[in-house]
Amino acid sequence: VSAPIWVELGDRRYPVIGLPGDAGSVAASIDEVARPGSLIVLTDENVHAAHGDALSRALDARGRTARWHVIPPGEGSKSVTTISRLWEEVFSEPVQRTDTVVAVGGGVVGDLGGFLASTLLRGIDVVQVATTVLAMSDAAVGGKTGINVPAGKNLVGTFHQPRAVLQWTGALATLPERERHSGVAEVVKSALLAGEEEVAWLETNGVALASGEPAAVTHAVQMSAGLKAKIVADDEREGGARRLLNLGHTLGHVIEHATGYGSWTHGEAVATGMVLALDLGQARGFGTPELRERVVSILAAQKLPVAPPSLTVGQWTGPLAVDKKRTGDSIQFVFCSAPGNCQVVPVPIVDVVDWLSRMC
Amino acid sequence: VSAPIWVELGDRRYPVIGLPGDAGSVAASIDEVARPGSLIVLTDENVHAAHGDALSRALDARGRTARWHVIPPGEGSKSVTTISRLWEEVFSEPVQRTDTVVAVGGGVVGDLGGFLASTLLRGIDVVQVATTVLAMSDAAVGGKTGINVPAGKNLVGTFHQPRAVLQWTGALATLPERERHSGVAEVVKSALLAGEEEVAWLETNGVALASGEPAAVTHAVQMSAGLKAKIVADDEREGGARRLLNLGHTLGHVIEHATGYGSWTHGEAVATGMVLALDLGQARGFGTPELRERVVSILAAQKLPVAPPSLTVGQWTGPLAVDKKRTGDSIQFVFCSAPGNCQVVPVPIVDVVDWLSRMC
Repeated sequence: VSAPIWVELGDRRYPVIGLPGDAGSVAASIDEVARPGSLIVLTDENVHAAHGDALSRALDARGRTARWHVIPPGEGSKSVTTISRLWEEVFSEPVQRTDTVVAVGGGVVGDLGGFLASTLLRGIDVVQVATTVLAMSDAAVGGKTGINVPAGKNLVGTFHQPRAVLQWTGALATLPERERHSGVAEVVKSALLAGEEEVAWLETNGVALASGEPAAVTHAVQMSAGLKAKIVADDEREGGARRLLNLGHTLGHVIEHATGYGSWTHGEAVATGMVLALDLGQARGFGTPELRERVVSILAAQKLPVAPPSLTVGQWTGPLAVDKKRTGDSIQFVFCSAPGNCQVVPVPIVDVVDWLSRMC
Repeated sequence: VSAPIWVELGDRRYPVIGLPGDAGSVAASIDEVARPGSLIVLTDENVHAAHGDALSRALDARGRTARWHVIPPGEGSKSVTTISRLWEEVFSEPVQRTDTVVAVGGGVVGDLGGFLASTLLRGIDVVQVATTVLAMSDAAVGGKTGINVPAGKNLVGTFHQPRAVLQWTGALATLPERERHSGVAEVVKSALLAGEEEVAWLETNGVALASGEPAAVTHAVQMSAGLKAKIVADDEREGGARRLLNLGHTLGHVIEHATGYGSWTHGEAVATGMVLALDLGQARGFGTPELRERVVSILAAQKLPVAPPSLTVGQWTGPLAVDKKRTGDSIQFVFCSAPGNCQVVPVPIVDVVDWLSRMC
C-alpha cells in the first residue's frame, strides 16, 4: 500500500488513500477518517448488491451507526427528484453537525453525495469511497458536486471538499468492464496534461491497463489523482489552472447531453471529446497530427470511442450556450500542443458552430 | 446616508449599505456592486407589486439585463418544491458565472435567493436587497441560506456570503406593520447581546420605533447589522461566538414549527423564544427577574408576543431532536446574565423536557 496523496488546502487538506483490501479495510479506514457521529451512507443498487452487506457488517462491528440510502445506478439519479427525496429521507432521523455522508460508488454517487453533504445543516463532512476507475482517478478528488437539470449537466451544485477520499481498488474486480474502460478516459486526460512520461507509460502499459491488471490500474488512478490533487491545491475554485481539467469535457458534455445521458458513458464522451478538442485545436494552430494519433491509439487500446455520434449542428451547439465554461460569446476549450503543454483557449461560439457544421 | 458597515472576511469582505431612497437609488447601487453580467432577480409577489415596475425600469435604464422570478410570499416558499422550480426556470435561459442573483425582499426571499445563488454553477454572486426590518437587521447579513423540509426549518442550506447587502429602508413605508414589528425582535436580540447602551436605547426609543419613525428604524437596523457583522467576521461558520445569535431561536423555531410556519411570524416566535430562554436561564442560574422584565417591556412595546402558544410537551420536544443546535444528548441555549453578558450553554434534552412539561 503506497502512502496517501494529500490535497493541500490548508486546514482543509485531505488524503487520497489507496485501499486494495476488502470491506473490512474500508470500514476501518472510514472509521479512522470520519469524525465521531453517525454515517449517512449513500450508494447505488449495484454497489450495494456487491458490497452492501459486507460493508454494513464491518461498520457495525466497529460500532459505527450507519444509515443507508440506496439509489438506482446511472446518471439519471443525479436529479432534482433524487436530491429532494434524499433530503426528506435523511431527515426522517435526526442529523447532527458531526455526522458524515459516506458516498460509496462512482461519479454519480460521489457528485450526489457531495452535494447532499454540502446542503445538510449548511454543510457536513463527506468521505468519498470511490469504487470506479472514473471516481478514483478524477471525480472523487477536488470537491466538485452537482446534479443535472434539463438544461444541462452539473448546472446545479457546490464546491465541497471531502474529508478524505478512499480509492477502493479492491472493489474494481466487480466493476463491469465497460465502466473500467470508461474511467481510463480521465487517466488519459491527466497523462496528456502531465507530460511525456505519463503518456509514454500509457502506451507501454495499454494492454495491462485494458485487461484490468490491478498493478496497472492502481498506478493509473494514482497518477491521475496525484495530478488532480496538485491542480486543485493551486486552484480550488477553477479560476485558473483547474480549467485544464476540462480537457475533452466541452464537447464531451454535449455528446452526453445530446444522447440523453446513458447510451454514452461519461468517460466515452470525454474520450471522444478529447479527440475533437485535439482536432479543433489543430485547426486553430495547437498540436500536431502525430499527437492526435498517439491519443487516438491510447484510447482505442482502452476500447474507448474516438469518433463522435451523428448529431445535427443544433444538437452540438444548443448545450454550448448554457455551458458553465462559457464567457460572453466565447467558450473555453483546452488545447494541447504536446504532452504537458496544454492551455485554456476561449473560442468564439460562432467559430465552434462553423467548425462543427463543416464536421456534421 | 451613513457610511457602509463592512463584514470583514478577507478577500470576501462586503458592505452593508443603507439606502433610504427610491427604486432608482437601489438600481444604481445594484449596478455598482454587481459584476458585469445578467441579474437573476428573486422577489415575492408583495414586493413585486410594490416595487417591481419601478425597479425593473430603473435597472433597464442602466442597461442591466434582469430576469425576474416572483414567488408567493411567506415561509411556505422556502421549500424543496420552490427551489426545484427555480432551478428549472433559471436555466431556461443561459446562466454565466459572472451573473448575479439579486434577492429583493425579506428573510424568505433572502434565504432562498442565497441558497439558489450558492447552487447555480457551483456558486455565483448574490446581492441581498433587504426590504424588511428582519432582513436588514439580521437575515441578510452573514451568509446563512436555507430551505425548510418537513422535519424542520433551514435543515437544508449552505453558507454563502453575499457580495453586498443593501438595506433598502426606503421600502419600509410599504411594509405591513406586523412585519415591521416582527423584525424588531432580532434588533432586541442584538441589543441584549451588545450591551446596556443598546438595551437602554430601545427603552428610550420604543415609541418611535414601534410607530416606524424612519430615523429610529434606521438606527435600530444599523445597530443590529453592525453587531452581526462583527460576530460573523469573527466566526463565519458558527463554531463559536456566532452561536450567540441563536438567542431566542431554539424554542422560537419550535413555536414556528408547531404552529405550521405562518400563524406566528419568525420574529414573533423569536420574541417569545427569548423570554423563554430568559426563563429557562434563570431556572439554571443565569440572569435576574429584572432583566426578564426589561426585555418583556421592550418586546411588548413593539407589539411582540411574550408568552408561548399552548403546545403539548410532544410538540415542544419533537423538533428539538432534529435541531441543528443539538450535540449528542444536549441542545444549545443562549442564556444572558446581563445585557452584553450572554453565553452558549448546552442543556441536557431531558432537563429541557422536564422544564417544558412543568410549563405546559
